[in-house]
Amino acid sequence: MRDEEKFQKIISLAKRKGFVWPSSEIYGGFSGFYDFGPLGTLLKENLKNEWKKSVIFQREDVLLIDSSIILNPKVWQASGHIKEFIDLMSECPKCKRRFKADDLEKDICPECKVKLSVPRKFNPMFKTFVGTLEDVSTQAFLRPETAQGIFINFKNVLDCFSKKLPFGIAQIGKAFRNEISPGNFLFRVREFEQIELEYFVNPKEAKKHHNFWIKERFKWYQNLGISKKNLKLYQVPKSDLAHYSKGTTEIHYLFPFSGKFEEVEGIANRGDYDLKVHHKHSKVDLRYFDEISRKKFFPYVIEPSLGIERVFLAVLCEFFSEDKERNRIVLKFPAKIAPVKVAVFPLLSNKPKLVKLARKIYQELKKEFICVFDDSGNIGKRYYRQDEIGTPFCITIDFQSLEDDTVTLRDRDTTSQIRCHRNELIKILKDKFS
Amino acid sequence: MRDEEKFQKIISLAKRKGFVWPSSEIYGGFSGFYDFGPLGTLLKENLKNEWKKSVIFQREDVLLIDSSIILNPKVWQASGHIKEFIDLMSECPKCKRRFKADDLEKDICPECKVKLSVPRKFNPMFKTFVGTLEDVSTQAFLRPETAQGIFINFKNVLDCFSKKLPFGIAQIGKAFRNEISPGNFLFRVREFEQIELEYFVNPKEAKKHHNFWIKERFKWYQNLGISKKNLKLYQVPKSDLAHYSKGTTEIHYLFPFSGKFEEVEGIANRGDYDLKVHHKHSKVDLRYFDEISRKKFFPYVIEPSLGIERVFLAVLCEFFSEDKERNRIVLKFPAKIAPVKVAVFPLLSNKPKLVKLARKIYQELKKEFICVFDDSGNIGKRYYRQDEIGTPFCITIDFQSLEDDTVTLRDRDTTSQIRCHRNELIKILKDKFS
Repeated sequence: MRDEEKFQKIISLAKRKGFVWPSSEIYGGFSGFYDFGPLGTLLKENLKNEWKKSVIFQREDVLLIDSSIILNPKVWQASGHIKEFIDLMSECPKCKRRFKADDLEKDICPECKVKLSVPRKFNPMFKTFVGTLEDVSTQAFLRPETAQGIFINFKNVLDCFSKKLPFGIAQIGKAFRNEISPGNFLFRVREFEQIELEYFVNPKEAKKHHNFWIKERFKWYQNLGISKKNLKLYQVPKSDLAHYSKGTTEIHYLFPFSGKFEEVEGIANRGDYDLKVHHKHSKVDLRYFDEISRKKFFPYVIEPSLGIERVFLAVLCEFFSEDKERNRIVLKFPAKIAPVKVAVFPLLSNKPKLVKLARKIYQELKKEFICVFDDSGNIGKRYYRQDEIGTPFCITIDFQSLEDDTVTLRDRDTTSQIRCHRNELIKILKDKFS
Repeated sequence: MRDEEKFQKIISLAKRKGFVWPSSEIYGGFSGFYDFGPLGTLLKENLKNEWKKSVIFQREDVLLIDSSIILNPKVWQASGHIKEFIDLMSECPKCKRRFKADDLEKDICPECKVKLSVPRKFNPMFKTFVGTLEDVSTQAFLRPETAQGIFINFKNVLDCFSKKLPFGIAQIGKAFRNEISPGNFLFRVREFEQIELEYFVNPKEAKKHHNFWIKERFKWYQNLGISKKNLKLYQVPKSDLAHYSKGTTEIHYLFPFSGKFEEVEGIANRGDYDLKVHHKHSKVDLRYFDEISRKKFFPYVIEPSLGIERVFLAVLCEFFSEDKERNRIVLKFPAKIAPVKVAVFPLLSNKPKLVKLARKIYQELKKEFICVFDDSGNIGKRYYRQDEIGTPFCITIDFQSLEDDTVTLRDRDTTSQIRCHRNELIKILKDKFS
């Protein structure tokens, strides 16, 4: 069910607490662009790290590269993006607003209720000019996907690292799409951070690996703590496939803005489309030499691809909760993705001994965890401030602490407290986090 | 002294071992753009982490944000970049090549030896168009610095985190400059990753904080292991200051491509220039309210700003060494920045027992460190392969290992080996790395 009220509360919390701000807000914002505040930057980093752990560090066959955003425009010529990467756009003859045809259920302007123009083609790649001239000869593009930066370096990776199939090359970085109608907060943006794995396999084994990555990636969202009932696999019908795809399964999340399951990640079988077209256009041999069969061939590639902004939005929606009984908002993030892991409070800010001990404990903990110190306002308010940003634990230093070096450790979700010795804190917290 | 031969060896090593590749190389490259291979991506990450440790995690007063690359163009109007961010460009009437006037010692084409044209103005911001129209009304820019993304969010940070002066806001991310003549490998590129700290202070204390950050940043390069004799502070003359600067001291490194000290980082006192212009143009109050004096004022800002590619290039040059005695190239990276920390080898690849034990040890170590496994070629070659990428330690599993669970631990720089028990490895390595 659509829950616009909840969605607005999430957007407002994200802004108020420094997760996400509309970009260039003091100049009225900029449609389709967002800035990540300090807590959003930490959360985004944690999500990327969870991905890296699962796809790179816990495996041995995936390498991470970092190619440039602006590539030689011949790359996009070869990849088909200049010709085939097309959105259909309709205009309202009355209000002149433009709509992406895919987004519309009827060809009527949702505002003016008049019939829209016949859709025309629009290429959502951002253009720029490289060099001191500004004409078609110097035209270049901001990448609309990080994948091509991987395909054009396929031979470099083979030459430097002599990998055997199957192996993967991954990339994390900005990508840009000049969306006709950006919207739904972070869901459809013009500048986003993409995470893509291109997993190269023997064509005969493509189906097996495709199924593996669909399962693996679906599990990853559940390991983030997202409830299975809010996740769904969706097989893209043949008629809707991108120009390079032999088959794509998407992972969908039930977002409150529509009350529908919407795409968060796609796992495509790109076949040998990309290596073949670059082989042809660049005239560089991009085939793989198989030492057993002594033959050269084009590997197939399985591509799990996501925009981190959508995962970010999904976890905000998933873990946002209102505790009406206690009149508080809680972001129930699992500890591994919570931007701040622990908060340390002296019970009273005007008792130097409490503050001093609290500072000392804070200094110790901050070597191990992202940690905040807060001595402003009453203790209940301080707890609620941390609940709102999803901090799993709060430590309070009170008068008893001065006597026996024990502190209270409060759990965000249950609000219950235990007393423990300050020397045990790091161990207790590490146990809770693992 | 200029050492073109050494510089070419470094570029070739970087390419051959998968640190840095010319972008879009299979299409003939793209001037001013580079792609980072797996080892370069790791090295870059390590350098960023060293910066974060020093500027964010070991302090308590700096927050990291992540603003968009494409900002509302009003930002660049207000900041003065549209009007004042100008390079002077001269053209050779014969070969038509264009030069940045600053780069030339004489106004004569270095190739054709004829007099260049009178310099004209060129704004190196990359242009693009946001939205479905393509005209001056939709023109936007790729940021030429990350700093403005911080200034426009100054009030957001104050509102969300109620910071007191002095405090800092930092950002790490891509920036773009359409350089007239990119060159010297990673030194002058068109797409780069910038790290900037904007440290907001009471204007009365600006000088003190400026001096602090100059010293602090200079120390950082020495802590990376860069020799003091290759580093220099350079005070930018008044006539050369950027339009926003009240004073800038640069950190220079002695690069082999010119044999001169060249800029790696600038530490500017931007005064209240930026907050004032955005306050004026946006009509949003960007003053800071001081609770003690009960007055509002514009803080000054001290800005340490660097391009990570230049630091990357400096460390490649600093730690590149040729061991002529043993006929090997060694990247003598300090362990903290080495892309790979440990390599594990079975002495022989055709002895399953050796391979099995080596794999086991590799699996254990890889939970702690970035680690590679190599069983290809003779052991001497494997050592040299690791020396070339700067891996500080290699572990070899030999026949004695099968009997007493000891292994050899080889030191990259001395090439000497010690024997130790496999259970001690993690502890020994951690000690060596700390």
